[in-house]
Amino acid sequence: MNFSEKLNNAVSKNNSLLCIGLDPAPDFFPDAESIVEFNKAIIEATADLVCAYKPNFAFYEAFGAQGFNALKETAAFIPKDIPVIADAKRGDIGNTAKAYARSVFDTLNFDAITVNPYMGSDSVLPFIDYRSKGVFILCRTSNSGSGNFQSLNCGTDDNKIPLFQAVAAKAGEWNEFGNVGLVVGATYPDELQTLRKLHPEMLFLIPGIGAQGGDLETTVRNGIDTNGRGAIINSARQIIYASRGNDFATAARKAAMELRDKINLYR
Amino acid sequence: MNFSEKLNNAVSKNNSLLCIGLDPAPDFFPDAESIVEFNKAIIEATADLVCAYKPNFAFYEAFGAQGFNALKETAAFIPKDIPVIADAKRGDIGNTAKAYARSVFDTLNFDAITVNPYMGSDSVLPFIDYRSKGVFILCRTSNSGSGNFQSLNCGTDDNKIPLFQAVAAKAGEWNEFGNVGLVVGATYPDELQTLRKLHPEMLFLIPGIGAQGGDLETTVRNGIDTNGRGAIINSARQIIYASRGNDFATAARKAAMELRDKINLYR
Repeated sequence: MNFSEKLNNAVSKNNSLLCIGLDPAPDFFPDAESIVEFNKAIIEATADLVCAYKPNFAFYEAFGAQGFNALKETAAFIPKDIPVIADAKRGDIGNTAKAYARSVFDTLNFDAITVNPYMGSDSVLPFIDYRSKGVFILCRTSNSGSGNFQSLNCGTDDNKIPLFQAVAAKAGEWNEFGNVGLVVGATYPDELQTLRKLHPEMLFLIPGIGAQGGDLETTVRNGIDTNGRGAIINSARQIIYASRGNDFATAARKAAMELRDKINLYR
Repeated sequence: MNFSEKLNNAVSKNNSLLCIGLDPAPDFFPDAESIVEFNKAIIEATADLVCAYKPNFAFYEAFGAQGFNALKETAAFIPKDIPVIADAKRGDIGNTAKAYARSVFDTLNFDAITVNPYMGSDSVLPFIDYRSKGVFILCRTSNSGSGNFQSLNCGTDDNKIPLFQAVAAKAGEWNEFGNVGLVVGATYPDELQTLRKLHPEMLFLIPGIGAQGGDLETTVRNGIDTNGRGAIINSARQIIYASRGNDFATAARKAAMELRDKINLYR
């Protein structure tokens, strides 16, 4: 089964476009083992409510080799019918990109990865060559500095094309096997709408609601495709830190259910 | 001592602009332990000939947690007066970039890192905030696909400015503490010359000679500053795989010495 089939099955089964970001802030955890325990509790409490999980590698790498093991254990604990996205934002020249793909897809056995497009085609294609895996190209990211380069006009004076649109167009060309998607931040709803119009069938991974401030209704309406799907809406802090007490898993379940249902309201 | 002082001391002591890329291709090594043994032999054979070492993280991550330990052991084995550059090409939003910086600078104790600029200022500044560490921003990379986006005109029709120049200009703005450099591929000598003219005092990390085909004389002449420094010229395969036999360390020493001396001819 390839990534988009696996995703679609999870979307149907759990009636959900919600992806939970498993982003354990290093300051909250004494060691990598405690992250694994935390993640397991979150996953057990929410696995029937999500279409995917997305650990961001930075929070694990901060713990060195133990963090890498925590990543692997976390991915292995997630039920087989829920896809796991490696938020790793990798990108390097050909033979190096191959080694990264091997690390994430073979060694760690993730279903998909986020990739940085700055270095161009040969930095991205080694990931896409894993046809059963998903590859999300950073396009218009959710952070405040994303406009520094992503908004620069790469068209002409009369026909302006911001860099992120040029990236999206190229990602469309790279999408020969149907396994390429885009990362588009909820914090830029107009750009999200533009990209959806330009790429009606592409899969969007959408971070930036909740703590980062993206409006949910606009995000869902602008992000979904004509089937009310095609958007993976990520939330991390709002769910995993819904409570910082012993009831964190119950609180996460409640927050995830509310968010899933709200998203479904606008689909 | 900050990164540029440490680098300059190594350049002086070893009379060298040569950086050796410690990039163990996964296919050549059965496990991460054998990488560490290999690296140690290479380092022992070449530590008096280089100004820096640069392990590319991809080749280590392919071995999972053991690879991470191999990175750490490798960095720890390098003599304290030779800077170690993490070729990790990281980049993520603010709090996540902080976790990556913590991983590379605190957990692994590297002296510098390569960073991808696509996500803009808040993805880069958390690295730069470690003022004693070096931060090399990907600018014009050495690979064949780098033109896909890096060469796009982000200026006007009449005043063309390729994206990589816009990145370099921004990197100049970010260089408040003097710890920011650029990654510029030897495979694009004209762009290297242009960037050196525009940024006469910035430190350049230059991959792409040897296996990737960049011409050495042009690279050195176009890359150095007016003091005959300011360029870290990286070579990996040409040195570490100079021989695939038991004499690999001796062969690496010979190749490193020849390359260092050739570089010095053109300084």
